[in-house]
Amino acid sequence: MKALETPQDKQVVWISCPDEKGLIHKITGALFKLGANIVQTGEFVDRKAQRFFMRIEFVITGSGPVSAEAVEGELHSLLPSSPSTVVELRKSHRRKLVLLATREAHCLGDLLLRHQAGELRADIQGVVSQYDSLHDLVRRFEIPFHHVPVGDLSREVHESKLLQTIESYRPDYLVLAKYMRVLTPGFVERFPNQILNIHHSFLPAFVGASPYQQAYERGVKIIGATSHFVNEDLDEGPIITQAVLPVTHALDAPEMARQGRDVERVALAQALKLVLEDRVLVHGKRTIIFE
Amino acid sequence: MKALETPQDKQVVWISCPDEKGLIHKITGALFKLGANIVQTGEFVDRKAQRFFMRIEFVITGSGPVSAEAVEGELHSLLPSSPSTVVELRKSHRRKLVLLATREAHCLGDLLLRHQAGELRADIQGVVSQYDSLHDLVRRFEIPFHHVPVGDLSREVHESKLLQTIESYRPDYLVLAKYMRVLTPGFVERFPNQILNIHHSFLPAFVGASPYQQAYERGVKIIGATSHFVNEDLDEGPIITQAVLPVTHALDAPEMARQGRDVERVALAQALKLVLEDRVLVHGKRTIIFE
Amino acid sequence: MKALETPQDKQVVWISCPDEKGLIHKITGALFKLGANIVQTGEFVDRKAQRFFMRIEFVITGSGPVSAEAVEGELHSLLPSSPSTVVELRKSHRRKLVLLATREAHCLGDLLLRHQAGELRADIQGVVSQYDSLHDLVRRFEIPFHHVPVGDLSREVHESKLLQTIESYRPDYLVLAKYMRVLTPGFVERFPNQILNIHHSFLPAFVGASPYQQAYERGVKIIGATSHFVNEDLDEGPIITQAVLPVTHALDAPEMARQGRDVERVALAQALKLVLEDRVLVHGKRTIIFE
Amino acid sequence: MKALETPQDKQVVWISCPDEKGLIHKITGALFKLGANIVQTGEFVDRKAQRFFMRIEFVITGSGPVSAEAVEGELHSLLPSSPSTVVELRKSHRRKLVLLATREAHCLGDLLLRHQAGELRADIQGVVSQYDSLHDLVRRFEIPFHHVPVGDLSREVHESKLLQTIESYRPDYLVLAKYMRVLTPGFVERFPNQILNIHHSFLPAFVGASPYQQAYERGVKIIGATSHFVNEDLDEGPIITQAVLPVTHALDAPEMARQGRDVERVALAQALKLVLEDRVLVHGKRTIIFE
Repeated sequence: MKALETPQDKQVVWISCPDEKGLIHKITGALFKLGANIVQTGEFVDRKAQRFFMRIEFVITGSGPVSAEAVEGELHSLLPSSPSTVVELRKSHRRKLVLLATREAHCLGDLLLRHQAGELRADIQGVVSQYDSLHDLVRRFEIPFHHVPVGDLSREVHESKLLQTIESYRPDYLVLAKYMRVLTPGFVERFPNQILNIHHSFLPAFVGASPYQQAYERGVKIIGATSHFVNEDLDEGPIITQAVLPVTHALDAPEMARQGRDVERVALAQALKLVLEDRVLVHGKRTIIFE
Repeated sequence: MKALETPQDKQVVWISCPDEKGLIHKITGALFKLGANIVQTGEFVDRKAQRFFMRIEFVITGSGPVSAEAVEGELHSLLPSSPSTVVELRKSHRRKLVLLATREAHCLGDLLLRHQAGELRADIQGVVSQYDSLHDLVRRFEIPFHHVPVGDLSREVHESKLLQTIESYRPDYLVLAKYMRVLTPGFVERFPNQILNIHHSFLPAFVGASPYQQAYERGVKIIGATSHFVNEDLDEGPIITQAVLPVTHALDAPEMARQGRDVERVALAQALKLVLEDRVLVHGKRTIIFE
Repeated sequence: MKALETPQDKQVVWISCPDEKGLIHKITGALFKLGANIVQTGEFVDRKAQRFFMRIEFVITGSGPVSAEAVEGELHSLLPSSPSTVVELRKSHRRKLVLLATREAHCLGDLLLRHQAGELRADIQGVVSQYDSLHDLVRRFEIPFHHVPVGDLSREVHESKLLQTIESYRPDYLVLAKYMRVLTPGFVERFPNQILNIHHSFLPAFVGASPYQQAYERGVKIIGATSHFVNEDLDEGPIITQAVLPVTHALDAPEMARQGRDVERVALAQALKLVLEDRVLVHGKRTIIFE
Repeated sequence: MKALETPQDKQVVWISCPDEKGLIHKITGALFKLGANIVQTGEFVDRKAQRFFMRIEFVITGSGPVSAEAVEGELHSLLPSSPSTVVELRKSHRRKLVLLATREAHCLGDLLLRHQAGELRADIQGVVSQYDSLHDLVRRFEIPFHHVPVGDLSREVHESKLLQTIESYRPDYLVLAKYMRVLTPGFVERFPNQILNIHHSFLPAFVGASPYQQAYERGVKIIGATSHFVNEDLDEGPIITQAVLPVTHALDAPEMARQGRDVERVALAQALKLVLEDRVLVHGKRTIIFE
């Protein structure tokens, strides 16, 4: 079997614009002229919104490197000229991540393991928590751990301390690996579509606190987990992945929570993989995922 | 392979009472003395509520038939004497069903097919609808169809006409096979834990109208269907089965609805099978299912 | 919500050829010039085989109809000239189906229901069986039923009688809805990639007879069903869909078979839907499915 | 919510004997007399084999401890006297595990994490591998790692070295966390029903080497993983858990292998949890799982 191309060589461009005839032809033609060899394309037309979306993965095989500006400029010049038209050449560098966690180890540990095994196309720069209990786990993976206790601090002061730590890493994404504190809109808007969360329910069922307790009380027969981008509305951000698990009457809420960990882990890891491969576009309250 | 025993020979008794030591021993002893051969038992203890539940399937193999009163009396005499103690010998006759539907054919047709193929351990006596559009389908299966139009009737008057038709069949269960009209509490309380509904969402997500439209707008990645007993709170009755289906951004609400039919069909049919085998006990807002 | 375009207006073209740079650009350009408005595209490159596959769904919006020959000719002229290059404009007429069944009603009944409800984009012309037991079911749907008994006939003579009946309908596809007799290679080769089968196991596990009995004996914890095109190698044709169901030790083989019907139904119906929408290309022993 | 009882207080007894009337009554009566409070019971009757199986979880609440001999003796005295009758009071001590692995980190790492988080009701005593590549990972969790290279050793000599290392820990179970070497019958028979393996396919599909390559070539639409006890027949041991994942034509064999890791991890971890809770009885080539 042929060796895989190294992912670093590939580039991804996202396009979003009003729909019109002939777009794919024009776009692929422009990339062809720039010396791009297309590896994979994905398109989606939202017919109701009359809007066109495209993701192209390509390798420049021409005589030399082509600047991001050149690609974006060329594509912009041929797309419908509208204030809503977006062309975004995704950065091709290895992404930097900062993880936030509280006390539960399963999602955090899973990401640390995948990172250590080389499964993640990204570098975990550091882990931040309001408690110290995960310090020992993180230390084992030789990742910096930052304990930022809440104590008597106001939400704003605590967050400004968090921010100071986080921004020292200049991360591409924050991953809330069961970070159980609500972030303020002021914090969230600094990282638009850059914060991934895992919510321990099948959203929009059981928003808010203690979703497994809620699920137990409602007597559902399937529980789930949801990974989503965080926006200003708690538990309302665009959903990336969901995973589910059948349950029976015999599970009480703590046992549901234990079993639910397995779907939380997987939902978060899969969402992160999709995001790191630049496969997730946000379109209003929904995501478009080019697999 | 040994021939299956005919299901008619089997009897099921349900027990629900405060938990205490030795209950299984006492109960199985009493049945033993009555000449019962136990085919299957299932127990569940709700530790928080300190409550014991048991389902026993048995065949009387002694010299002659034993009356329901004898079984229930014998069991009652040895269980904790509490007003909450319940012993219920389930009727062993073939159950009678009346189906209610509106315009969609998939759940109704699925049940008619299973009935015709001998898969259902019950008889569909008749189908009632506020429209005439399913008449042709039902006629093909030689089941009486009753068109009870709403017209200018008040909800109460319409329901009293429904009731007249339904009660002429003396049904054991009503099955709402996509019956898209809310039933009044007065109607519902006449059939306690005897009305099964299929809701076209993964409850408690998307209660109320147009759940697929809601699911589309929220951008979920999994849709579902929920079968539940109907009680006075709309969409709040005890859940029996749930089934799910992955979806992508590429499905609009009507296409989700089309694909969702496959899980609706299965969730309702499985719930009905469990109910007809007397495997579903209601415990507050939840069900206990002895599989 | 905007009305759906009628599917009859859409056309689908399949392309399969050696991979080279710029193919998407060329193909979309040719269609653009022919007055085609592209509704959906899907591409796949088999990197190992260096082979390019594309499915394009389009509507001709220009001044008048364009002939199939014109579309195929235009596309052929710009694709790599290779004996392996294929351009196939799929017929846009409503497809004609003949169903074959034996004694089990669930898959057959499910397709008859979907047909009657207008869910299938095809017409069921007739049903053929070596037994008469499904006659009554088929009659209810006013579809011709042909009883072609085996009796003392040799396999070849029986098949020639089957063929006579089937070919009188000039069907686009044959659907084996639990037809439990092996077809000879001579029969199969008359309908290349036009015969769909449902096998009652998760292939390639449990090929051959009595798969549920085999599954029971092996003690699997998940059972399944597989829909595939039939080719000369029994149970070896290209797989279209698979569906699975968890089971426990408590199910014997007949009960597994009963529960398995629900996944058989769904796997076959989904495969047929994909085929009728021209979404399934065969590539060696595998299928490429453009969803 | 009431605190969970510590699992150490609970005891489990397994019973397997010819079926006869009144067994549940007799067994629960004997335990009652010994001062046992039954926490959970599970029964299963294999009707074809006329065989009765029961698992009882109980707590001795009487005046003092009761010996295993007393429990087993008492139960034996009332069960059908047959050479096949088995009564086994499971050890209540925390189980000792030795893990074997080769080069892949995902299953091993997952178990190490669960162990460190206190999720496993067992102690991982050591990890053994024929390579050194997982040493660094294991070291992070402060678990002894034993590198037992194969080099020029015969299979028998290598295994005797493995055995020496393993037996120094007196383990209750061996877990093959992607140990990619076949064990000899002589090795396996030393640990009857004590070796858990994870096979990277949905058995019995794709036994032997390179199952993902086989799955790719066959063009399946669902892949899976199987956890089973190891017996003398390779890939033929009694199955404990299976897990599946949908795939498309777009995945080549290495990408299938990458995605398959997520189901391998979960299938193995769930099987180990069931085994450690004494919920898995082996019955011929099948398992009976009391959940």
